[in-house]
Formats: sequence, structure tokens, C-alpha cells
Amino acid sequence: MDVSGPVRLAVAGVGNNISALLQGVHLYREMIGKTGEDGLPGIRRPRIGGIGVGDVRFVAAYDVHPGKIGQDLREGAFAPPNNYPALDVEVPPQGVQVEKGIDAQTGEGAERVVKSLADAGAEVLLYSLPTGLQRAADAYAQAAVDAGVAFVNCTPEPVARNPETMARFEAAGLPLVGDDLASHLGASVVHRTLLILLAERGLTLNSSYQLNFGGNEDFRNLRDHGGSKRQSKLNALAAGQVVLDAVEVIPSAGHIAHLRDNKVAVINIEAVGWAGTPISVDLKLKVQDSSNAAGVIIDLIRIAGVCRRLGLAGFPAAAATVLKSPAGGHVKPEAAEAACAELDRLANLKAGGPVRR
Amino acid sequence: MDVSGPVRLAVAGVGNNISALLQGVHLYREMIGKTGEDGLPGIRRPRIGGIGVGDVRFVAAYDVHPGKIGQDLREGAFAPPNNYPALDVEVPPQGVQVEKGIDAQTGEGAERVVKSLADAGAEVLLYSLPTGLQRAADAYAQAAVDAGVAFVNCTPEPVARNPETMARFEAAGLPLVGDDLASHLGASVVHRTLLILLAERGLTLNSSYQLNFGGNEDFRNLRDHGGSKRQSKLNALAAGQVVLDAVEVIPSAGHIAHLRDNKVAVINIEAVGWAGTPISVDLKLKVQDSSNAAGVIIDLIRIAGVCRRLGLAGFPAAAATVLKSPAGGHVKPEAAEAACAELDRLANLKAGGPVRR
Amino acid sequence: MDVSGPVRLAVAGVGNNISALLQGVHLYREMIGKTGEDGLPGIRRPRIGGIGVGDVRFVAAYDVHPGKIGQDLREGAFAPPNNYPALDVEVPPQGVQVEKGIDAQTGEGAERVVKSLADAGAEVLLYSLPTGLQRAADAYAQAAVDAGVAFVNCTPEPVARNPETMARFEAAGLPLVGDDLASHLGASVVHRTLLILLAERGLTLNSSYQLNFGGNEDFRNLRDHGGSKRQSKLNALAAGQVVLDAVEVIPSAGHIAHLRDNKVAVINIEAVGWAGTPISVDLKLKVQDSSNAAGVIIDLIRIAGVCRRLGLAGFPAAAATVLKSPAGGHVKPEAAEAACAELDRLANLKAGGPVRR
Amino acid sequence: MDVSGPVRLAVAGVGNNISALLQGVHLYREMIGKTGEDGLPGIRRPRIGGIGVGDVRFVAAYDVHPGKIGQDLREGAFAPPNNYPALDVEVPPQGVQVEKGIDAQTGEGAERVVKSLADAGAEVLLYSLPTGLQRAADAYAQAAVDAGVAFVNCTPEPVARNPETMARFEAAGLPLVGDDLASHLGASVVHRTLLILLAERGLTLNSSYQLNFGGNEDFRNLRDHGGSKRQSKLNALAAGQVVLDAVEVIPSAGHIAHLRDNKVAVINIEAVGWAGTPISVDLKLKVQDSSNAAGVIIDLIRIAGVCRRLGLAGFPAAAATVLKSPAGGHVKPEAAEAACAELDRLANLKAGGPVRR
Repeated sequence: MDVSGPVRLAVAGVGNNISALLQGVHLYREMIGKTGEDGLPGIRRPRIGGIGVGDVRFVAAYDVHPGKIGQDLREGAFAPPNNYPALDVEVPPQGVQVEKGIDAQTGEGAERVVKSLADAGAEVLLYSLPTGLQRAADAYAQAAVDAGVAFVNCTPEPVARNPETMARFEAAGLPLVGDDLASHLGASVVHRTLLILLAERGLTLNSSYQLNFGGNEDFRNLRDHGGSKRQSKLNALAAGQVVLDAVEVIPSAGHIAHLRDNKVAVINIEAVGWAGTPISVDLKLKVQDSSNAAGVIIDLIRIAGVCRRLGLAGFPAAAATVLKSPAGGHVKPEAAEAACAELDRLANLKAGGPVRR
Repeated sequence: MDVSGPVRLAVAGVGNNISALLQGVHLYREMIGKTGEDGLPGIRRPRIGGIGVGDVRFVAAYDVHPGKIGQDLREGAFAPPNNYPALDVEVPPQGVQVEKGIDAQTGEGAERVVKSLADAGAEVLLYSLPTGLQRAADAYAQAAVDAGVAFVNCTPEPVARNPETMARFEAAGLPLVGDDLASHLGASVVHRTLLILLAERGLTLNSSYQLNFGGNEDFRNLRDHGGSKRQSKLNALAAGQVVLDAVEVIPSAGHIAHLRDNKVAVINIEAVGWAGTPISVDLKLKVQDSSNAAGVIIDLIRIAGVCRRLGLAGFPAAAATVLKSPAGGHVKPEAAEAACAELDRLANLKAGGPVRR
Repeated sequence: MDVSGPVRLAVAGVGNNISALLQGVHLYREMIGKTGEDGLPGIRRPRIGGIGVGDVRFVAAYDVHPGKIGQDLREGAFAPPNNYPALDVEVPPQGVQVEKGIDAQTGEGAERVVKSLADAGAEVLLYSLPTGLQRAADAYAQAAVDAGVAFVNCTPEPVARNPETMARFEAAGLPLVGDDLASHLGASVVHRTLLILLAERGLTLNSSYQLNFGGNEDFRNLRDHGGSKRQSKLNALAAGQVVLDAVEVIPSAGHIAHLRDNKVAVINIEAVGWAGTPISVDLKLKVQDSSNAAGVIIDLIRIAGVCRRLGLAGFPAAAATVLKSPAGGHVKPEAAEAACAELDRLANLKAGGPVRR
Repeated sequence: MDVSGPVRLAVAGVGNNISALLQGVHLYREMIGKTGEDGLPGIRRPRIGGIGVGDVRFVAAYDVHPGKIGQDLREGAFAPPNNYPALDVEVPPQGVQVEKGIDAQTGEGAERVVKSLADAGAEVLLYSLPTGLQRAADAYAQAAVDAGVAFVNCTPEPVARNPETMARFEAAGLPLVGDDLASHLGASVVHRTLLILLAERGLTLNSSYQLNFGGNEDFRNLRDHGGSKRQSKLNALAAGQVVLDAVEVIPSAGHIAHLRDNKVAVINIEAVGWAGTPISVDLKLKVQDSSNAAGVIIDLIRIAGVCRRLGLAGFPAAAATVLKSPAGGHVKPEAAEAACAELDRLANLKAGGPVRR
């Protein structure tokens, strides 16, 4: 097996994240062809275990949306309700038809997916369905085990955190990466960073809020069912000395269709300093929501792929800092960096040469 | 000598910073009397070397402003152009008249100040004149040496960074703390924190700006003579992976009288993430400018005071993180914390008992 | 009857609006006693028909909340869930107990209220219950007719717009003022003003949004039941050339308890100008929600009171500009001003003297 | 003469405004060719006196910059320090070389320009040099009179307000349009609109500020010499009930190179409403500075052109609302609209047919 060849990727769920991933991979390939791998915009790690950001080959795709099934992946990625923008890059047909995926209610279709994964020679299955479909998440994870494929769970559903599921991947010698993507740069990390800064400087937090809104389907769903997401986002703010008594987070303040796949967060912090005099911070953050996901997915896919090739089963520590609920618990950035460097070293050893880059 | 008694403080320059310090010290004394030292708003370290935030006694004050000379320090602190607000606390007359200070052009008055410092039994001299008066800074520092008093330099003028001056303090067994106050929470640290966060997450900075404006005299002066301040603030943003090519800082965007002693900073960051899609951050920070100084001064005074009592000469590492240009160079927060803890331990030893708190 | 004496006011609903009104009336009385009626903060019309902003006497109050019934109005106004701040003014006990009001489901209590209104000698009944209680609104309006009292409807429920109800007030020679308070300065008027400005200047609107959030009970209710409010707020934006295709309004983006009675609105406008180049506007508006109501209520009460004294039945044109759905339809500000001036003239005539002020 | 043919335009000064005008004219021609004149983005009046927004022919251009003289106007418009963006439109060579203009110090070159204007058959001369060159403004105006050409003054220099100059244009039967462009949508009109709204609603203004910054040469010049501009912008805010005691305007808060031709304005308003409770507004406005000028220039050129064709000498009332200091004084928008409609009617009469559109 070529340790540094393109990762053979199967995707469960053909939403905006996949549109961002598919277009981005082609865009970066084009950039690398012109100017090499240095200074790629928005890329922290040009290579992980020898695999570049353009080194992803889509070999299978699953969805249940009638408008997507049977389409080439390229067409499926642009089909509504997807509304990630069309980037300035030519994406060729992928030669991969979107297949009918596992039924989220009945679990029907699992055997079909196992066979498809095997036939396609997939190395990694990326699970990226809407939030809340625990049964589907479990079924796809089992299909990955059965087909001998690594699994990446982008959603908050506990999969990698489920010890039984993890045990099955470990027994099969397969990597299991999850759960829940951290955004590339999301409201949570910005908010937490500012709250920690205030605490470190000795200021006293009086109150704070964070409102999120946008135009993709997530914001419609979360508007009504944001309770658990609110708690999860509050948890994400808890750190060290930060007191959350008077901190409020609204995961979806509203669905604003014309924002499309953009997400806006509004953050306010009111604190006091010396002699109780006031300090206020107001911040507006605007991001392309699915780019924020794809910028992290590209690392998880490569980590999962290289671990599978190296025979490293279970949860890879290198993935911990870009997940909200890493199976192995949170680690310091330095530890994740070290784990990544170790993957590079091992991949290079196996490739029989000096580490590239 | 009572190791944990109030620091006997002399101040050179009776501006807004001193108004903030004077009122704050009395306010905290009142709070501590009512509810103790826990949870004091805006205070990171209730005690340093056993000295509390209310443990400051003003024993001498110098200024050259005719409207301040001869006044009790309390009246001097409220005299125009000072415009720090009157806090909700009763400040009694201090029993200390503002004396005519050293002439910044001729150096006249130095002997008078040496005698005054000695007569007052001052332990620490806080130098807090307007920026740019190098001769005055040097003269006051020499007066401190001559009177056997520790010195804290709040301004960017090189004093502690001047090896000859430092050598004189060390020879005299006196602490010399400087140079240039870091704000309690200023635009620089907020801006730098966000730029570092972006770099850490792998986003690519396109451009950024930071504008500062306010209503005190600093903003009038800096509007026309902000060149060196701009470079100093740009330096403050440089850290690790942050590229400053397209970062602009305007130290004084304008003097807006009605803002009085408030300072506003407007920060914008434009970056790109995955596939070059845009991310933007807009932030507004509003602070009480002189509280931002006093919140740091209170630590420097106590560090200088306890070091003098313990016979620790030269630059105290405990002060490094709250100075922009620490004589000993920048250190990690952990190192400064450790140095502070060491002061606590030594002070306690000298006091002959277990560490308070 | 003294044409310019205090208006004898009964209130249905003792919420934040009444707390703001009660405290404000006493505060302004104090100010007027000290410095006269010139330059009162937040007051457009120091007198309407000779009646000043302090000239309100609370003579009856109705509510169904157990924690308010039986209390003096002063205590009722501060009882939870009310969270309007306590202003810096001494409010004496009003000598008026909060009585049990009309049951919003059954209509029970109407006769009791009629008798109470008559016994109290009320001139105006201010209806200010939570939104959505049509039956209560109708029952209180009928009670006002039966007791010979003018009626002011602060809520969106159609009362003055109901031709039958209006006919009954006209037949009884009584003023009927409604419906739905315009805010003193609300998000709708700011948003509409900016959209009109853009259209007038020939810019092309691409998209816009308005999000509202706050900490009083309204924002909790509207979060889930904001559909009709959204449409009503969109209607409020429609004006002249403003196209609402890509305008979204979120009446309650979230309930943020620590904001208490404050309301925050976030408005964004994206447009294009010459050659399709972009123009963007971002705005944050923060107001004291119930002050925003009371600042308008003070005018409506005085208009209703003076009209009743002058025997002017039906809808007074002077009220049109501070209502969202005025019974007589919208009029130009000049027309409302003229109608107010006419009230002044008539009141003065009746008082037998030259117009005051 | 074809009343509705393209205006034959000469330009004095080939800066960003001309780049915006030149590119925009071609862009709109392209749009009109595809979809007609309805719904052109950023255009208030598709036709003035029968002249469309694409109906401008550049017949002469003057500048003193060595990098521009001798270039085709297209190249001159893109030459540095111009930094208006290149729009998505093909601009062909204009067949017009930038000629050496009148020397701003000595007035040399006036005769050459008169001859050039006459030879080119120019109908309108647009004066758009940097602010402050009164002698150049006067010399170009005289050249226009001498060559029988209408004149549009974009700058604050008094030209149309100079009664002698106006008399000369009137005697020559030529239109004279000026002075000082109002922006299509600028900080002044947004700020003034909000201040008027607050006053109308009866709120009491406490304080307000407006800061402007950007990346073109104006912001570099104004940073140091913004005194008169500050007063001019304060004047622009004065209206009706607006009190300017605590309003500050900073015309150039700073030159931020990476903003290029973009302009950002930051506006804050602090007011109080009922019972003195606070209201605050924070606004950020971002515009393409030279588009903001070109969107107004297109109207002034057409007004000047059609007036000359109709033999209407002196200051045209139709131009009053898009000038900061109109020679004829400020008029209501309705009056300017009526004057525009009258131009349409007269132009149509002369053309011998029914009014187009």
C-alpha cells in the first residue's frame, strides 16, 4: 500500500460540509500545482503522515435525499437544500454516484453500505449527517467495522465515546475518530479565549452573552431544539477560572435565509476592573459555516487514513484538539502536535525514506 | 519594620492614574472592611508579600502644575485637567500637600525631592509623569537612589532598562521596577490574543487594524506624536506566528473630549479559512483608561515595597508580566507567578509566621 | 373640573411599564421642582393640553398576580417578575392597593372593575397586560365605557381598530386611544429609517436582518410565539420604496436573563451602490425596554385625559405617531403636532387663560 | 444636436473618482444591453433629461501626474496612487490621451486646456482634483467659460458659490454646478439621520462621535489637515433640533493602507429617554469611497449636460440635493425632484417626442 497516496474516502451525508470539502480539495490541488504547498490559505498542516490537502479521493457517498441519490457526487454536493457557495474552481464529475444510505429510523440498508464500502476500497468513512440521528450514527459505525474501514464522526452523537463501539474498532485494528467537530474558528473558541484572558488579567466578569445565527438548515433545527446544544456550548466555555453564572449562549438566535451558509456570532462581555470601573467588549464574528467544518475535517480524514495504513487502532491523540468531545479526553495543543509529528515519523519510516517536509 | 504594614508611597505626577489609585485604595479598604478580601472586583492578587490592596499610605506627592501644588493630595487628584470620575467612596484629606516637583527641563528641585522623600519615610517612589520627559524620569530615579527609596517607572522612558541606572539601584540595595505599564486589559493584549488564536487555528490573516481613541490628554498628545507609540504597539502584537504585514495600529485616532478618561478601541480582523473563504472579526473595547493603569500599579507598588523590605535589589521578576518593557526581559506568566509566590514565602518567613491566606 | 390638574389614572396590568411610569413620574416631579420644565431628559412635550409629565395621579390598579394583589401599587410595581431597575428617586406609597383584575379566560371580575373605576374617579384606564389576551383587552375596554373612563390600549390586540368598540366609546363621548405602542426609540423605527435613507439615495438593498433580545418576560414569550410579531415588525419596515424580499426580523433571538429589562437589537444592512460596489451597515441599539414604553405612554395618557376633559370622543389624531396601528391610520408627524397644538389651544380656552408655555 | 446622445465629458484630475466613473459607465452599458434599464444596482435615476447612465463619452482628460500624462485615459485611471478596484468589466482604450493639465501654482496651461476642450467638442468639464487647490479650480472654471463648456465642481473650493464666477457662466449661457459632492451614502447623512430621529422622538442627546478612516490618499491628507473638514462635517450634522455640544467628528482617524479605496465610519450615540434611562447606538458603515462619489457625479454630469443643451445657464436646482454647498442653497428633496422632472419634460419637448420612460 502506498502510505502517502490519496485517502480513499467514503462520505455518509452529502451536505454543505461535503460540498466545502469536495470543492476545497480540488481548489487546493490547483493551487499546489501552481505554487506548491507553502502558504496555502487556511491550512495549518500541509501534510499529515505524508498526505497533502489535495490527496483525497472520493470513492463512495451515501444520502437519503431523493434529489441526491443517483447523482454524481459533484451534482449531489450542489443540490438543495445545500447552499454552500460555488467556489472559483472546476470540479470534474467524480465518477461516484450517491447511493441510498442507511435509513435513520429502521437501520435498513446497512448490509448494502458494508458491501459498497468494501467494493469501493474505502479507507475512511466520514459520518456527517444532521445532528440527532443516533441510530444512523451507530449503524454507519458498525458498517465501517464490518467493512474494515476507519470512521470519523463529525456530529455530537456519542460514537467514539461509547466504550463498546470503541472496543469493536480496537478489536478490528481500526481507527475511530470522534466525537463532534470543533470549528476551525468558531464562536466558542473566540468567546472562551476572551473570557480566559479577562480572568488571567484579574478582571471580574459581570455578564456575557453569545448569539449565533445563520442561513443553513442547522440554524432552523437548532432554533427549536437548541437546549442540549446550549449546554454543550456553555461547557465549551468553561475553562480554568471562568465563572459561567452570568453567561448565556443562544445556539440559534434565528434562521436568516439570505445568510445562506454563513454564520454570524455576536458576543458581549461586561466586566469590571480596578475600583469596579467597567470594561466592555462587543464582538461580531462572521464565518463560512461549512468551511469552518471542512478546515477541520481535512485533518481528521488524513489522521484516520494514515492511522489505518499504519495499523494504529482506536482513538488517535493527534485528533484531540479539533474535536469538541474527543474520545480520549482533552489534551494540550502541544500533545496533539507531538502526536501528529509521530504520525509523520511513522509514515515516513514505513515509506522507507526521510520525512517529506 | 512591619513587613506587612501599608506601603509608604510617594508619587511623582498627580494625574488621572493617581486619582484612580487614591480613590481605589480607599474603596477597597471599605469593601474589605465589610466583606473581607475574597472576590474583590478587578483584583487578581488580594495580597502580595502579605500586603493588601488597601495597604497603601500616600506620604509624599510631586507635581509642577500650579493648580495642584500646595493642595492636599486629595484636591490635587481631582484638579483639572484630571478627569477620572469621582467614585462612590469618601476619600479623606491625605494630610499630604502636593509639593513642587523636579523641573523637567532644568532638573531643578532634585535635592528638595531627596530631602522630602527621606523626611516622609517613603518606601516607594511611583513615577507617572506624561510620556516623553526622559530628563525628569532620570532625575526622579536618582532622587530615589539618594533617598534610599524603591522606584517604579510607569512610562516608556528607559529607566530600568538603562544598565547604569540599574547598577546604581543594585549597588544601593534597592528595587527598580520598569519600564512602561502594561494595561490591565488593553487593546494590545486583546488584539494579540485574537491574532495568535487565528494563527494557531491555521487561518491565514489578510489584514487587520486597531484604532484607539479617548478623551484624556494622552489622546491629544498621541494624535500628533503617535509614531513611536505606533511602532511600540505593533511590536506588542508581534508574537509567534503572527505576521504583521497587513496590520495597522493607530494609537490615537482622535481626542474626543466627552469620552473623558474612557478609552475605546476598534479592532478588525479579516482572514481566510478553508478554500480561501472569508472570516471577519469586528470588536469594540471600552475601558476606563486610568483604572487600566491603576489595576497594574497596585501590583508594582506592592512588589517594589516588599522587595525593599526584604532587601531584594534590582529588577523583581514578579513584575515582568505587567510591564511592556521589563528590564529583565519578558517571561512566561508561570514564571512571574512563581516569583510572586516566592515573595509571599519570604515575607512570611521574615514576619515569623505561616503565610497569610 | 380643573383642566390642567393631574390625570387620575387607573392601570390594568402592573408590569415593568407601570414601574417605569410610576418611578419616572416621581422623578420628573422632583426635577421640575428643582429646575423647572425646560430640558427634561427624554421628554418631547413638557405639557400636553396643559398637563405636565409629573401630573399623573395613580387612583386604581388591577392585576391577577398573587404577589401583587393587595400590595400598595409601589410594592406591586417592584414585585417579581418585574425587573425594571429602581431609579434614584423616592417613590412614596401610593395609597392605592392593587386589586384583583378581570380574569383573562372567563372575563370574571368586570363588574368589580367598573365599580372600582367609578369609585376611584378615574379619568383614564391604561391597558398594559401581556400580549395575546384579546378577551381581557375587550373586557377592560367595555369596563372603561361602562365607568365613563377614557381607554389607552398599549398592546397589539385590536381594540381601537375594532369599529364596534370605537362606536361604543364615541357614543359614550369618551376617547379611545390605540392600538399598540410604538417605542420611544425602537429597533423598528431605526431600521426603517436606515432602509428609507438607502432607498432615497438610490442604493440597492441586497439583504438585511434585525435581531432583538433581552431579559424581560416578553423575550421569553416571543422566542416561541414570535410569528405574528415578526410579521408585524416586517410591516413596520415597509415604507415607500423599501423592498422587503431579503429582510428578516427575529422578534426574540433569545431570552438573556442578565439583561433584565434591557433590550438589544442588532441590525445589518448589505446594499450596493455605483457599479454594484458594496455598502454595509452594522448597528447595535441598546435601550431600557420599559422606559421605551413609558416615554410614549406619558403622552397617550395625557392626550386621553385632556380629550376626555374637553369632551372629544373617539380616536385623537394627536396620538397617531406614537402608535404602531393607530385607529385612524398613520399620519405625518406634522399632522400629529398640529393636533397636539390644537389640544393645547382648546385646553387653554377652557381654562380661561393664555396658553401656558 | 442630439438631445439624448452621450454627454461629451472632459475630466480635470484622473483619480479614483474617474476610475470609478469610467469603469461604472462601461459596466452599466453592458448591463443595459443585457437586461435594460430597470433595476440597475445603485442607480436612482436611470435617465435624466433622456440621458442614461451609460451615455457618457470621455473626450478629454487633464492631470499633472507624470505617470498619467500621455497615457490613454484607461491606463491613467488605473495608474498609482489610484487604488479603486478593477471591476468585472472590459474597459476598452478610450482613444483619449491624458494631457498635461493646468499648473496649480502658476496657472500655466490654461490656454492649452481651452483649445483642447474646444477641439474635443466637450460639453461638460468635471473638476475633481485633490482638495485645496483653489487657483486650479478657478483656472479650470475660466477655461470652461472660454471654451463654452458646462462646469461641475466636485471639491469644497468655492467656485459656483463665487458670485463673480457664477455671473460669468450666466453671461456665457452656460451651466455651473457646485460645490462639493455629497456622498451617495456617507457617514454624514447616516449620522445626521440618526441624530434627527432621536430628536424627533424626544430623546435627549448626551454625546456622539463619528470617526472616519480609509486607505486612499484623502485619509492621509486629512489626518493632518482635517480642521476645516471637521467643521464642515459638523455643519453637515446641524439640522433642526440637533444640538452639537457634545458631538465630535474626526474626518480622518487614520490612513490604513490595506483598506485601499474603502472607507469605514464608526458612529456612536449616547442618549437618554424616559426617566433619564440610557439609550446607545453603535454603527459601522463601510463603503467604496470613490463609488460613493461616482454615484453622484453621474447625476451632476447629466444635469450639466442636459442644461447646456437646453440653454439653461447658471446653477440648476436639480443638482442641489447631491451637493454639500449648492450655489443656490439647500432645497427640499421634492424641489430637486421637481426640477429633475422639468429637465426631462424640456429635453423631451426639444427632442420632439413623448418623454422616454
